[in-house]
Amino acid sequence: TSSYSGNSHSGRISLVVRVPNTPGSLTQPLAVLGKYQVNLTRIESRPTTEVKQPDASYDIFINVSEETSPIVTNSSLVDRIKKAVEELNSHGIKVTVLGEGFEDMAQSSGGEVSTLSGIPWFPRKMRDLDAFASRTLEFGAELDADHPGFHDKAYRERRQSITENAKQYRYGQPLPHVTYSEKELKTWNTVYTELTQLYPTHACKQYRYIFPLLEKNCGYSPHQIPQLQDVSEFLRECTGFRLRPVMGLLSPRDFLNGLAFRVFHSTQYIRHHSKPLYTPEPDVCHELLGHAPMLADPDFAEFSHQIGLASLGASDEDIDRLARCYWFSVEFGLVKEDGQVKAYGAGLLSSFGELQYALSNEPQLLPWDPFVASKQPYPITQYQPVYFVADSFSSATDKFLQFAETIARPFSVWYNPYSQTIEIVDSIQKIMKIAGQTKQSCSLVTEALRRLETRFGTA
Amino acid sequence: TSSYSGNSHSGRISLVVRVPNTPGSLTQPLAVLGKYQVNLTRIESRPTTEVKQPDASYDIFINVSEETSPIVTNSSLVDRIKKAVEELNSHGIKVTVLGEGFEDMAQSSGGEVSTLSGIPWFPRKMRDLDAFASRTLEFGAELDADHPGFHDKAYRERRQSITENAKQYRYGQPLPHVTYSEKELKTWNTVYTELTQLYPTHACKQYRYIFPLLEKNCGYSPHQIPQLQDVSEFLRECTGFRLRPVMGLLSPRDFLNGLAFRVFHSTQYIRHHSKPLYTPEPDVCHELLGHAPMLADPDFAEFSHQIGLASLGASDEDIDRLARCYWFSVEFGLVKEDGQVKAYGAGLLSSFGELQYALSNEPQLLPWDPFVASKQPYPITQYQPVYFVADSFSSATDKFLQFAETIARPFSVWYNPYSQTIEIVDSIQKIMKIAGQTKQSCSLVTEALRRLETRFGTA
Amino acid sequence: TSSYSGNSHSGRISLVVRVPNTPGSLTQPLAVLGKYQVNLTRIESRPTTEVKQPDASYDIFINVSEETSPIVTNSSLVDRIKKAVEELNSHGIKVTVLGEGFEDMAQSSGGEVSTLSGIPWFPRKMRDLDAFASRTLEFGAELDADHPGFHDKAYRERRQSITENAKQYRYGQPLPHVTYSEKELKTWNTVYTELTQLYPTHACKQYRYIFPLLEKNCGYSPHQIPQLQDVSEFLRECTGFRLRPVMGLLSPRDFLNGLAFRVFHSTQYIRHHSKPLYTPEPDVCHELLGHAPMLADPDFAEFSHQIGLASLGASDEDIDRLARCYWFSVEFGLVKEDGQVKAYGAGLLSSFGELQYALSNEPQLLPWDPFVASKQPYPITQYQPVYFVADSFSSATDKFLQFAETIARPFSVWYNPYSQTIEIVDSIQKIMKIAGQTKQSCSLVTEALRRLETRFGTA
Amino acid sequence: TSSYSGNSHSGRISLVVRVPNTPGSLTQPLAVLGKYQVNLTRIESRPTTEVKQPDASYDIFINVSEETSPIVTNSSLVDRIKKAVEELNSHGIKVTVLGEGFEDMAQSSGGEVSTLSGIPWFPRKMRDLDAFASRTLEFGAELDADHPGFHDKAYRERRQSITENAKQYRYGQPLPHVTYSEKELKTWNTVYTELTQLYPTHACKQYRYIFPLLEKNCGYSPHQIPQLQDVSEFLRECTGFRLRPVMGLLSPRDFLNGLAFRVFHSTQYIRHHSKPLYTPEPDVCHELLGHAPMLADPDFAEFSHQIGLASLGASDEDIDRLARCYWFSVEFGLVKEDGQVKAYGAGLLSSFGELQYALSNEPQLLPWDPFVASKQPYPITQYQPVYFVADSFSSATDKFLQFAETIARPFSVWYNPYSQTIEIVDSIQKIMKIAGQTKQSCSLVTEALRRLETRFGTA
Repeated sequence: TSSYSGNSHSGRISLVVRVPNTPGSLTQPLAVLGKYQVNLTRIESRPTTEVKQPDASYDIFINVSEETSPIVTNSSLVDRIKKAVEELNSHGIKVTVLGEGFEDMAQSSGGEVSTLSGIPWFPRKMRDLDAFASRTLEFGAELDADHPGFHDKAYRERRQSITENAKQYRYGQPLPHVTYSEKELKTWNTVYTELTQLYPTHACKQYRYIFPLLEKNCGYSPHQIPQLQDVSEFLRECTGFRLRPVMGLLSPRDFLNGLAFRVFHSTQYIRHHSKPLYTPEPDVCHELLGHAPMLADPDFAEFSHQIGLASLGASDEDIDRLARCYWFSVEFGLVKEDGQVKAYGAGLLSSFGELQYALSNEPQLLPWDPFVASKQPYPITQYQPVYFVADSFSSATDKFLQFAETIARPFSVWYNPYSQTIEIVDSIQKIMKIAGQTKQSCSLVTEALRRLETRFGTA
Repeated sequence: TSSYSGNSHSGRISLVVRVPNTPGSLTQPLAVLGKYQVNLTRIESRPTTEVKQPDASYDIFINVSEETSPIVTNSSLVDRIKKAVEELNSHGIKVTVLGEGFEDMAQSSGGEVSTLSGIPWFPRKMRDLDAFASRTLEFGAELDADHPGFHDKAYRERRQSITENAKQYRYGQPLPHVTYSEKELKTWNTVYTELTQLYPTHACKQYRYIFPLLEKNCGYSPHQIPQLQDVSEFLRECTGFRLRPVMGLLSPRDFLNGLAFRVFHSTQYIRHHSKPLYTPEPDVCHELLGHAPMLADPDFAEFSHQIGLASLGASDEDIDRLARCYWFSVEFGLVKEDGQVKAYGAGLLSSFGELQYALSNEPQLLPWDPFVASKQPYPITQYQPVYFVADSFSSATDKFLQFAETIARPFSVWYNPYSQTIEIVDSIQKIMKIAGQTKQSCSLVTEALRRLETRFGTA
Repeated sequence: TSSYSGNSHSGRISLVVRVPNTPGSLTQPLAVLGKYQVNLTRIESRPTTEVKQPDASYDIFINVSEETSPIVTNSSLVDRIKKAVEELNSHGIKVTVLGEGFEDMAQSSGGEVSTLSGIPWFPRKMRDLDAFASRTLEFGAELDADHPGFHDKAYRERRQSITENAKQYRYGQPLPHVTYSEKELKTWNTVYTELTQLYPTHACKQYRYIFPLLEKNCGYSPHQIPQLQDVSEFLRECTGFRLRPVMGLLSPRDFLNGLAFRVFHSTQYIRHHSKPLYTPEPDVCHELLGHAPMLADPDFAEFSHQIGLASLGASDEDIDRLARCYWFSVEFGLVKEDGQVKAYGAGLLSSFGELQYALSNEPQLLPWDPFVASKQPYPITQYQPVYFVADSFSSATDKFLQFAETIARPFSVWYNPYSQTIEIVDSIQKIMKIAGQTKQSCSLVTEALRRLETRFGTA
Repeated sequence: TSSYSGNSHSGRISLVVRVPNTPGSLTQPLAVLGKYQVNLTRIESRPTTEVKQPDASYDIFINVSEETSPIVTNSSLVDRIKKAVEELNSHGIKVTVLGEGFEDMAQSSGGEVSTLSGIPWFPRKMRDLDAFASRTLEFGAELDADHPGFHDKAYRERRQSITENAKQYRYGQPLPHVTYSEKELKTWNTVYTELTQLYPTHACKQYRYIFPLLEKNCGYSPHQIPQLQDVSEFLRECTGFRLRPVMGLLSPRDFLNGLAFRVFHSTQYIRHHSKPLYTPEPDVCHELLGHAPMLADPDFAEFSHQIGLASLGASDEDIDRLARCYWFSVEFGLVKEDGQVKAYGAGLLSSFGELQYALSNEPQLLPWDPFVASKQPYPITQYQPVYFVADSFSSATDKFLQFAETIARPFSVWYNPYSQTIEIVDSIQKIMKIAGQTKQSCSLVTEALRRLETRFGTA
């Protein structure tokens, strides 16, 4: 079980309008969009990230809300946006549209072909992840009939109240605090007690290394369910990862897109007390015992981040391939350790049964190869027949990066950790910027070697 | 005028204790320090940032409070810490001490020589900047006799109440909101109105480019003093810089150390209404009209960041050289632009008189050369006789980095933007980590070129 | 068939003596070696390649000849060298010995442990390849009983006279010119005519691209056997590869070591006329039709070079693994091309039968994976049951470099193409040198992007 | 005095014809050129250096000889070439012309604009340097009236016979061997004896370090004039530099272009015996005592190489700026050494008088700054009034590379040391190639650090 399944991203539309650096230019586009009754939810005018020509232009980032845009009988929202863009083009203003239904715009926008038109919508700023808040595929509000808590009205109400917090959550707010009941704590206690018996022998060394720090810093214990806020803050100080509350399963695209910002979507409710060692959906036990410890490891964090970056603007087919890579690594991955095999996947580390099964001689083990994993079928209701074994997280990342080059996309992406923004690397200018950073990084290596050499003499 | 002057960092002590990954190891050091009556203000156990051997050890970051450590007649705090460290060493636990009075410990700590012992204290995490909160050199609480507000009791009380907010401010909190009075707004209006007349002809293009965005996003206008919180958030989204309230002038060391985290210490009170075009100390006009716009430019932000990084653990002499570099660039720098010379220094951009003087033919202009600037004397109570002119911010950074190599320091530093931590690059392992990043950055360049080439054919 | 098999490198000894930059220091070591009756064949005093301290010391490269060193009843040559080294050590002179029998010297040489002592001998300068001249495993002078020419005395004498040229050949000389007889030309004509029918459909595109250039520049034709000198010169201008005449099969170690200098050892005699489409050993048809065209391709040349670099100083076990990698790529490799599979291995491109067989559906095809290939058994007297298929030569190189990291060796190597010398990268200083080059290479990328951008505007 | 002065490169023309990979395509262009009576001196068909599309096309490098092209009354050679190019263009064949008189061709060649058309001719392969053989500005055949040997007929004949060797020399040949007379040896002896007295105190440490190796390996001694061949071979093994005989002063463009291939043009005759401590032109004393030792130092070699690369295709104005940089460094440069100043310029190291003068307190010393040096006037018949002092050769190179970026040229260049070819980096594809090399270089750094770390443990 993991925080996603299925696939859908319809209805999200955002525009990037590039206006000249002239008086009034920042307001004109809004007037035009208003004229066509396009309702905007977020408007940000920002400097362009182009290296040169700071005088030249600004980027206005605009998110469009389908919900609040009025329904106009003779014209769909997509059509109205197209007309607005046409009008802006006629004033020499370049608009890039992200979202479905605009695939045919590249040609029509007169002149320069944007690398983004016709690409599925994706978040470009951490704040854009707010768009996922109310979108979950299953279990969001209602439970399946075979969910252990389906007939327990009190459980469903409790679960509902916790997911409501997630639904309301917005970027920048503190994470919701939940006071868990005795019954919930008992469930946690059972899960925690059982699993912690297995970790010394079954969990990988990175997990075993981090776990005591979580006990020390975040209140991990059999008697207490840690708060997402505390865990998120600890992760942020280790690797920059942060948790974000979610109602339930996100689509694979949304979930992976979150990883591109080092944001991990995490449920906060707990499984039903009647079956403490089973859950058909991700819950706080899965997140905190399965995922969180690994996200504190720099190499694992980098690996997860790269999967996220590869997912931005990918086609549905590529999202499917990436989701399988994610499944067979972050959820069910194994790793070599001093001649043995250990578990690092959260689906294993949070499952008393499958953790033991995976390290028995029963299942088939293959070397981690994203080209293979991306085509591997997987059952979601039983133990995996096949697991992939990495040599190390850094070599797993190297292999993944080779795979990521096969994602069909007319641009590369770079995550700017300072502005928490995805930068689209699609021009010589932007490549120059990355090349400049490479050079500076190279200088640091040389300088550090020199200082080390000065200290130690000729090693 | 700028937010610092003078030099002092006594009394700050922090320890990094490296303990093995064994049961109980996280608490033992605290017991030993307690035994010697050393009072701790912050204790964080974190994974080491070493690349390898995650099983091996943890780092415990400990801040020591001089104020609350009891005074023991027969033994100074420094001596007691030394004894505690000795005892920890005898248990095989390695301790690195940052702070004054421990210069002789490198030899005595038995075995491995730390690169940090004997180095002046410096912040290693953004949270460490809290240590600067109550330390200002001048004007913190009291005004000089020649301050225009010296005899105005109401002004002094108002100023005091605003600086009190800054004193109480701690990492992670929202920045204080100040409701300015009519009188204060009138002062701002005068300053704003005068200066904005000069910007079109005197300010550099980066400044002119950003200014309309500040009007749009942060409420810059003649009739309103923008809130630090809004400006800080805008800067963070542009370049990762953030503002932090400060009581008054910090020591150059503290102020520059802040820049290493992309944190800019900013006052929030306004100058005395009697002399709206003059202030002997930094005030909110200087910060918001002088500094803030430039910090939104990526190249200028990088330049400022590098000055900050160079200042970490530098000797008092090197801090003095760096402070002069800062003075002749960030405060009073000029830059070439299409054959003309424009201002980018905040001391100029916030001074109606000196901004005009600097671009007249009167003062001497030299090409930006940090080797020269670092030795240049400067008056603080009159216009500068000499200004330095940069070709561009990126070339200014290149030159500064060559200068920074002359800072005497047995290690290099790297700022980890994910964890907001300074990493000490002082071992082969850590250099490998940077080299690995360089390689990955190189791969991104290659991949982006390939995607661009695929899109355009043979350019 | 390829130019090597088996394994032996006994009897080669070379010394690197590091002497201080003082009068007389360049002659003292020779006196000491003479005293112990060690006979030297080559003595070169050169600057050290260390980055720093040019005042400090010189390297004297000394090759020892076993053949001409006198036999002294009570002491082996190895023992005498050890004594000489001891005496030099006692004068503070550091000696590194490359060769068998000196594995125990690392400890005894008093002080600094060399990374090279105990490592199998390997060439460090192109001139050192002269050591291979008279060493071939088989067929050097005598033929096997099943060689088609075994009973043909005239053929054996002709073959002998050509190999004698190879035996006498020394670095820097022009390659031997051979005037081939009518009978030999007829054999060549048959081979050439048959194979060139298959190339359009069976050879990879790089081969097909180069072949017309060899016709134009080097005299490739059915009626003429090209001269090694002409082909070597052409290759040198394309990729820096050069041919070097060899008597017959070299040991895998020697052969691969040659590739580290972009030197390809090549036979010059031709197979027996009785069986023009068969040869049990490499001959000029195999070299010129199989190997030479591929060596003109920059990516293939780089791939071959990297195999060579990995072989320097490798253990016997690692040489065996590398030889298999070589076998399944340079000799019998296949490569993908527009959805089809084509041949690039010389063993295929020079065999009318196996070239067709390899591209039939009969044999098993595996993706190129040096970790797998290095363990794959192979028959040498029949068609291969398994072939490895590369995606491209550059991706094949990337994969090989990951494999090469598993070669157990306490140093990395870098080939200096200017001095044609192998540099041992085993100290911080030398890594700094490579890091400095990386930085400069990075600068070139940035500069070239800038110039391109200036030319084209914002692409 | 140095091996060049003045400026002229008229009359050299070369063509690069790109033909498709189809039968007959390699011969068609020659037929067209023949039709227009253009006489070709060198024709080489080679693979293109483009990364991709090996099927696509070949490059034919063609040198045109003005001397042997027939004079056709109604049409100049330039016009006839233009017509031939037009005809080739009409067949879809792309031609790049290097040489004077073709500046207007870029537009007319129908379609793609070459980055090279309109650029002054420059050598692209080491063999192209043969074009310089018979071109010297002064002293080539005749001496000036104030030359000490002007009235000595025997001297002039001797000098003539040595320069004739240089004139006949072609790429790849062994360098001419000269048996010097007793009188010549006496002159050498005087110069050698005087200068070697000053070197211990006046020459830089790199010079002092190399000199004993030249005595040991190349026959440097008061009693013998070393042969260029021996010195060239020694330099090649140290840094890849090689000497090439020259008749006398080359034009600055030709001379600097040679350095781009690590080729140093060197005279072989000696000054007149009447004035052993004076010569108005470069002679063998200047070359062997001034230049040769420095060219064995890797950092100095790199510095010289970069000046050469910057000169390729530069405008006449830029050649002039580069010639001044060369003059104030390679010929008359000083360098800091342990707080003192030492000489490294060949003009100083070969002049008994100026070597002492330069290190006296008389002349003005400036820090090495190519931006300043490139504008500095210089006298050629008296001691320099100004000298430039470098911190080190690697920092001097860094500074020069910043200067080289100001050379106006629509492409960057990279020297391929394997094929000894200048590669024009003017497309995304070619930048990708350099970026790929950077990445591989980065990998080597990482691997070498890992191996070092494994050997030493955590340093």
